[in-house]
Amino acid sequence: MKIGNCLIAQSGGPTAAINATLAGVYSAAKKQFAIGRIYGGMNGIEGIMKGNIIDLSSVLDKDENLKLLKTTPSSFLGSCRYKLKGGSEGQSEFQKLFKVFEENNIKYFFYIGGNDSMDTILQLEEYQVANGGDVTFVGVPKTIDNDLCCIDHTPGFGSAAKYIATTIKEIAADTAVYDMDSIVVVEVMGRNAGWLALSAALALDSKGRCMADLIYLPENVFDYDKFIEDVKKVQQTKRQIVVVVSEGIKLADGSLISEAKTKDSFGHGQLGGAAKHVEAVIQERIGVKVRAVEINVLQRCAGHLLSARDINESFMLGEKAVEVASEGKSGVMVTTERARNGFYSITMGATDIRLIANKEKTVPEDYMNEAKNAATQKALDYLMPLIQGEIAPVMQNGIPKHLLLRDYI
Amino acid sequence: MKIGNCLIAQSGGPTAAINATLAGVYSAAKKQFAIGRIYGGMNGIEGIMKGNIIDLSSVLDKDENLKLLKTTPSSFLGSCRYKLKGGSEGQSEFQKLFKVFEENNIKYFFYIGGNDSMDTILQLEEYQVANGGDVTFVGVPKTIDNDLCCIDHTPGFGSAAKYIATTIKEIAADTAVYDMDSIVVVEVMGRNAGWLALSAALALDSKGRCMADLIYLPENVFDYDKFIEDVKKVQQTKRQIVVVVSEGIKLADGSLISEAKTKDSFGHGQLGGAAKHVEAVIQERIGVKVRAVEINVLQRCAGHLLSARDINESFMLGEKAVEVASEGKSGVMVTTERARNGFYSITMGATDIRLIANKEKTVPEDYMNEAKNAATQKALDYLMPLIQGEIAPVMQNGIPKHLLLRDYI
Repeated sequence: MKIGNCLIAQSGGPTAAINATLAGVYSAAKKQFAIGRIYGGMNGIEGIMKGNIIDLSSVLDKDENLKLLKTTPSSFLGSCRYKLKGGSEGQSEFQKLFKVFEENNIKYFFYIGGNDSMDTILQLEEYQVANGGDVTFVGVPKTIDNDLCCIDHTPGFGSAAKYIATTIKEIAADTAVYDMDSIVVVEVMGRNAGWLALSAALALDSKGRCMADLIYLPENVFDYDKFIEDVKKVQQTKRQIVVVVSEGIKLADGSLISEAKTKDSFGHGQLGGAAKHVEAVIQERIGVKVRAVEINVLQRCAGHLLSARDINESFMLGEKAVEVASEGKSGVMVTTERARNGFYSITMGATDIRLIANKEKTVPEDYMNEAKNAATQKALDYLMPLIQGEIAPVMQNGIPKHLLLRDYI
Repeated sequence: MKIGNCLIAQSGGPTAAINATLAGVYSAAKKQFAIGRIYGGMNGIEGIMKGNIIDLSSVLDKDENLKLLKTTPSSFLGSCRYKLKGGSEGQSEFQKLFKVFEENNIKYFFYIGGNDSMDTILQLEEYQVANGGDVTFVGVPKTIDNDLCCIDHTPGFGSAAKYIATTIKEIAADTAVYDMDSIVVVEVMGRNAGWLALSAALALDSKGRCMADLIYLPENVFDYDKFIEDVKKVQQTKRQIVVVVSEGIKLADGSLISEAKTKDSFGHGQLGGAAKHVEAVIQERIGVKVRAVEINVLQRCAGHLLSARDINESFMLGEKAVEVASEGKSGVMVTTERARNGFYSITMGATDIRLIANKEKTVPEDYMNEAKNAATQKALDYLMPLIQGEIAPVMQNGIPKHLLLRDYI
């Protein structure tokens, strides 16, 4: 194993588990004698280009802090949404990055992120193959969207799914109290992949009945006429209805509901999210009391409601990334595969980044019923293990305590 | 103590603690030999008028269910927003209600609710004084708004405040990750009383600094020019800013921000909430990335994040209501008073409903700073004890288990 320092950075949208992965990478890197200093890159690849890197040991060598990091949501090292440029401008970007690597004797680079971050790993690896260099590039997955390929599920998704299922259940309880017909439309994240909306199916009551009456994913065409029919059908047996829509639901022409020009037809201006548009249509065509709820960023940063399985696996995938790097594998992302024997267990490995970057894993067709408005048992079997177990956050003054970089810089 | 049955009902908006109070009333009523059957009125006074009452013993005699009820959000018995009518129509309503009381030998009526519910207790008591009858009417407070008089704080408020403070802290962590100027505007409930917005001040970091940079209550005039100045001042030292607004913030002419006609001036139509309007103004006058987040119903139904103090006190106030009723006090609401010796402790009592109904307790002037955009230490001293301690909900299939009436009827 080559001797040198390592650099860890985070990128893309925050999740409640991305810091557990950082803790895992740090913890394993610390045990590798070949690895000297452990640096953190600030604000992902964008900050690293500017040379914004810090020595993590002063903060994370304290066991108490490392533990706190595991339940701190959002990205401890900051984040970016930056796509490396191609062409001549791209060349100068790569040169800047490799200069930072060289100056700090970085031999291992761990990038914790989603699809864009894996594209960054791919590009760095390809640049190095073409231009020389001896940095080991390892991608470590994170995204609440669960849309990465070659992995059973992504770290961060389980906690987001647990938050969404819990929230849907609580909203259903809330909306059921009045003796009147009503509909609540809950919008969850997911532009192209409907995994988060699908996880609303986990909002089960004590008898195993789903409390989300209708669920719509971006994978299927959303049709207003069919939707109104669906609602009327549910209304035959139920007075208070919960509808879950993905922010990415699209009409037959491929246009997003949320970008529809509904101003004239429904009397509303640009209302923002998909739920607001669906709310307007319900008001016009059904006329019962309706409320749109956008869960918004809470679904990706609720560190107070974590899936223990998600957090533990996120940590372990971080450790795995160091193991993979120590074996000299570069240009890979660490992955998980689920055993097919009925009991939940995963094995961790590493997969060529070329098979992962710039691909998107959407919800399989048979995870939704024929009417495309409810999840199947197959979907529940896939989702259910991912939200199991709780990790109580450390509390201070009655609210969760976080490990924040602003306390150290 | 007179012998008879008792009737418990719930009214007004859901909270995460209203069922803990129901559990308290039930539990204490069960121990009173003078009380025979314990009935639950469905959908408050509106349902009782229709005779919709059920015997609660079959469900709540099980200890397991009573325990589950304590952490089940929303109203187990359903709710209503119904104001008893005056005049001749009102007479027929009272007659209907007293007929239900008589037919079921109801001698004790406990109404768990907020301001409107206390008005109901007042009207029932006054009707009885004028027309005869021997029902003991006791109001039991609940409201996340904390706007009832003669009580230190209302059951339900502590859990909502804990949820809001936690959420603001998580949103602040989420919004801080990108290396860019940004503002997030979070809207919390509270039409006339800003207690919930004030509780955002509890979103403290490890060093005790507040993570909500600016807080605006309905008690103070909201002025856009001053607001923009406030934001620019914060921007001098901070790039990512969290603004908290109460849904009830009003302009100098008394009109609600959320009802402002901003269509022409900001290019947006009727956008709904206060935060959306503030977002539009920031976009126009400051131009940084801005996001409006409406916490919506989650702040009143998040049974997964409870203040142990709130839940325990809510239960005890329910018990106290039975004690007060057993002493024959009618036309009262049970209340709490806080000791003034520095340590948090409360004593429970009962106060004449005439002093409470149709009054509203707003945030005292000295709970906000001079600039009316941040809480004072006095406010923190008041709020902090109310969010202490956690009660983990019972979990099933990875999400909180609830006690739902639909499983029993």
